[in-house]
Amino acid sequence: MANEYPHLIERGLTQESIYRGKMLKVRVDTVALPNGEIAQREIVEHPGAVAMVPLTADGKVVLVRQFRYPINRVTLEIPAGKLEWGEEPEATCARELAEETGLQAATLEKLTEVVVTPGYSNEKIGIFKATGLTKIAALSEADEFIDIVELPLSEAIAMVQRGEIQDAKTVVALLWLSQA
Amino acid sequence: MANEYPHLIERGLTQESIYRGKMLKVRVDTVALPNGEIAQREIVEHPGAVAMVPLTADGKVVLVRQFRYPINRVTLEIPAGKLEWGEEPEATCARELAEETGLQAATLEKLTEVVVTPGYSNEKIGIFKATGLTKIAALSEADEFIDIVELPLSEAIAMVQRGEIQDAKTVVALLWLSQA
Repeated sequence: MANEYPHLIERGLTQESIYRGKMLKVRVDTVALPNGEIAQREIVEHPGAVAMVPLTADGKVVLVRQFRYPINRVTLEIPAGKLEWGEEPEATCARELAEETGLQAATLEKLTEVVVTPGYSNEKIGIFKATGLTKIAALSEADEFIDIVELPLSEAIAMVQRGEIQDAKTVVALLWLSQA
Repeated sequence: MANEYPHLIERGLTQESIYRGKMLKVRVDTVALPNGEIAQREIVEHPGAVAMVPLTADGKVVLVRQFRYPINRVTLEIPAGKLEWGEEPEATCARELAEETGLQAATLEKLTEVVVTPGYSNEKIGIFKATGLTKIAALSEADEFIDIVELPLSEAIAMVQRGEIQDAKTVVALLWLSQA
């Protein structure tokens, strides 16, 4: 699509790594704007992520309740996680679903993909529906403090509509299913 | 909501500023986990943002086409922008709508608010519907290279459903209106 719009395109000239943390990597690129002027772009590098709506046979969604330190709030979200380098998104789904909920899914169906902060990050999130759920493990994720919350899909969608679920990937996934 | 879930809460202990760029600010906090262990959290600080669906009297949405350097893609998004410090969200809407589209809205209705990356950023985006549109200005935003694209709302929603619009705030806003 970029080639169709040469009057919009910025061209990367140089990259400088600014910070390489455990989770975040930040770099500053020098770019040429469409008019030839030079500007800088600050970018959070992200390996990409997946998120999935685990849907039970009786029409319930399995959500995770967790504390999100950056926003100082307890949230309800669909299970999600970052891709490991070189990992297929479906493998990440299986790993995160097991780690966060102790479930395995017989079927994963991709609903869509979103970019969450295209102004300053390359993060993409593949959003899936996970069905055919079976319990495979007791939870033992030492690193994560989460509650598992099962709700009827219709109630989860109502929570989105009332603004009680605000996590963007979760809102997209639940509104998507409310249309299906 | 946090007080109801003491077994999930992390408590901030110290903050260290790591990077203060033109657009991004990054800090690392030391936190106490619910079990008392110590961990670090890397956080992108964000002033918050607004986004709005400008809806014309004949049922069209006004979108902006722009190049997003971090994802190396041309995107179609609803107009949006960051809050200036101390600015009311409605004032940001008016400013960004004028800057990006040359339009003024008689009515702003808040649809919802989302958090886009609660794992590592405090960014919140208030999402509005803007109606009663009138042309107030020729475009002269020297800094932004954008095209204005008017589409029937139904066609914009179809683009979301086909995965041709992937910006999360835009997906949320359009799916929201598709339900209304």
